[in-house]
Amino acid sequence: MQKQAKINFDQKFKEIDDYWSPRIVAQMNNYEFKIAKIKGDFIWHTHRDTDETFIVLDGNMTIKFRDKEVFLQKGEMFVVPAGVEHKPEAKGECKILIVEPKGIRNTGEVKNHFTSENGIWV
Amino acid sequence: MQKQAKINFDQKFKEIDDYWSPRIVAQMNNYEFKIAKIKGDFIWHTHRDTDETFIVLDGNMTIKFRDKEVFLQKGEMFVVPAGVEHKPEAKGECKILIVEPKGIRNTGEVKNHFTSENGIWV
Repeated sequence: MQKQAKINFDQKFKEIDDYWSPRIVAQMNNYEFKIAKIKGDFIWHTHRDTDETFIVLDGNMTIKFRDKEVFLQKGEMFVVPAGVEHKPEAKGECKILIVEPKGIRNTGEVKNHFTSENGIWV
Repeated sequence: MQKQAKINFDQKFKEIDDYWSPRIVAQMNNYEFKIAKIKGDFIWHTHRDTDETFIVLDGNMTIKFRDKEVFLQKGEMFVVPAGVEHKPEAKGECKILIVEPKGIRNTGEVKNHFTSENGIWV
């Protein structure tokens, strides 16, 4: 646990190669801060019991919903409400910070090749 | 509540003039994301029951502890553990994002002119 070390996002991103593989950089109470590089299409999924926060640190992404889409650039954030189906996408490489309760599965109720292992720190 | 709107930090900061006056930009479950402009010295204080997250969006700041200090620049974050006395400072203007449970008093156990009203959104 690196709870009491400061986190430099640029340095932490150097330790990540794979897209769509969130890695924990900090824990606050029972919440985790995770960074991820994303590119291309993720899958439609839902987190039934929790909101999920996306903060764009570099690049841009779109969060698709069944009835709208939200385009996010560097310096923007969005909270996806619990129970709302969504699909993150990024045309180019995008670097994001995710905030959510500890142990949430990145693919929600779905389990497939996009499902990443939890609990991995960088 | 602007829970389902996207947040652009630069735009939100235009609505803030006062230093050390955190304003809510988003809520995730029972946690709040607050932005603040800070400059000068804050006071020593403790949040007994919760960790507190600082993310520097622009400028730089120092979080002093009784036994060390942590210098944070743009693109860096730090989680102050619950129960640990600390004192934020910034030589020049610094823009930060704070994440903590809803309703936390910014001055911890202290109540003085630095204590800002909770529940104000921008």
